Amino acid sequence: MKIISDPLALKNYLRKQKKTIGYVPTMGALHEGHISLMKKAREENEIVVVSIFVNPTQFLAGEDLDKYPRRDEADKKICELSGVDVLFMPMSEFLYFDDEVKIQAPNVRGYILEGATRPGHFSGVLRVVMKLLNLVNPTKAYFGKKDAQQLHLIILMVKHYFMDVEIIPVDTVRESDGLALSSRNIYLSQQERQEALKISQALYKASSMVASGKRDVQEIKKEMLLILEPLEIGYVALLNRDFESIEEIILGKTIILVEVLVGKTRLLDNLWL
Amino acid sequence: MKIISDPLALKNYLRKQKKTIGYVPTMGALHEGHISLMKKAREENEIVVVSIFVNPTQFLAGEDLDKYPRRDEADKKICELSGVDVLFMPMSEFLYFDDEVKIQAPNVRGYILEGATRPGHFSGVLRVVMKLLNLVNPTKAYFGKKDAQQLHLIILMVKHYFMDVEIIPVDTVRESDGLALSSRNIYLSQQERQEALKISQALYKASSMVASGKRDVQEIKKEMLLILEPLEIGYVALLNRDFESIEEIILGKTIILVEVLVGKTRLLDNLWL
Repeated sequence: MKIISDPLALKNYLRKQKKTIGYVPTMGALHEGHISLMKKAREENEIVVVSIFVNPTQFLAGEDLDKYPRRDEADKKICELSGVDVLFMPMSEFLYFDDEVKIQAPNVRGYILEGATRPGHFSGVLRVVMKLLNLVNPTKAYFGKKDAQQLHLIILMVKHYFMDVEIIPVDTVRESDGLALSSRNIYLSQQERQEALKISQALYKASSMVASGKRDVQEIKKEMLLILEPLEIGYVALLNRDFESIEEIILGKTIILVEVLVGKTRLLDNLWL
Repeated sequence: MKIISDPLALKNYLRKQKKTIGYVPTMGALHEGHISLMKKAREENEIVVVSIFVNPTQFLAGEDLDKYPRRDEADKKICELSGVDVLFMPMSEFLYFDDEVKIQAPNVRGYILEGATRPGHFSGVLRVVMKLLNLVNPTKAYFGKKDAQQLHLIILMVKHYFMDVEIIPVDTVRESDGLALSSRNIYLSQQERQEALKISQALYKASSMVASGKRDVQEIKKEMLLILEPLEIGYVALLNRDFESIEEIILGKTIILVEVLVGKTRLLDNLWL
């Protein structure tokens, strides 16, 4: 496995390969969710590139940038074992410039849900993803469905700017008890971890209601809120795949998104119906 | 010459070619300045692509979007005669989308000079140029030095986003009396056209002062202002090539920019020293 930190060295190296490239951008602290992305990239491409970069521009003031988990040595080993060909670990100084051209998240879809509580977050995400996709120029890039709004906005950016990459959404990986994997789960105390299970329980409840024929968004949302009630709820949203409000669930066209604060830890989960 | 209006058809067609592509983006109303760009593109590449698109997002409210000169038939003929292979004439509906990811010009360099009188203008320019460059994916793209700040910002965007294109600046073409060619020159009355000559006269004055050994920015600017005085001056700026203030001219590293309003027509010119 080749480890590269210089953006232009990465670009020059990859441009010479003339092979299909599968790319998995990450912020490190790799877990089974990331590994499933790498595995898929490995199956579908000749070269697999992973990047680890804790992107400062997507953290707002007061967020957990400084304490975001960093585990470089363990991450390198995981990449090596996952058959990654190139690991890109850039330094911020070489990815960002003074007085920069910026990317601005969409006025509506960039400022609802996560974007409402974290205004500017998605502009930072799109900015770094645009840079990284241009550097790597992958055939396919793999993103987890767990960050559903991020995934949606990246798909929009690729469409709006006619970028030459196929974005591949990959299913969320869960613990056996249902908790969606996240690098931020390590913040949870034993008790908080138990409380966090209510998130997947609420989503399963919605799923079983839909399975039994229920379609009314308000009715399903009400049941979910009952389960989530003990937690500090950020949002529970039942939307179509364009992230617009709906009244009735249509199978294959709906997404249910949940954000809760467990202790001080913000947790996301969702279900694609 | 192939004429294409559908962005994705253009993209698919060009991706199949596997040849070097020279690209000249324009807003039409083609003149000798554009022709010099096409000529250079023709010399240096296997395929020449020209686009004609009067980009709405770079016009502010109240500007001349609606009356911007449109001469499609004459333009097609000029492209044909200039050896253009592909002429791309997209419709706005297929280049822009609802609730779009946007490009934001740099906070400083995007809001000085032209950006000061036309706030948001360069964000619109960069937005369409990013789309067009991604669609065409040219080896080289050609831009006139006359729009110096635009050129500078496009070079910055390509750098900041690690885009795979070489930006080629091309010298301004002038009438025999010195007036820089511009599609907006047709707005000028006979008398205004005469007055407009003061712009190139002021630049020539600066040039000859520098040739005779003068280096002091204030001294040169003062002489230029004397010549330009009868006109409504937007700005006269002597800057380094990063568009930062300087006190002394350094040859090969300086640019002098002028904007004046002649009648209702905003005219730009500049000199690279």
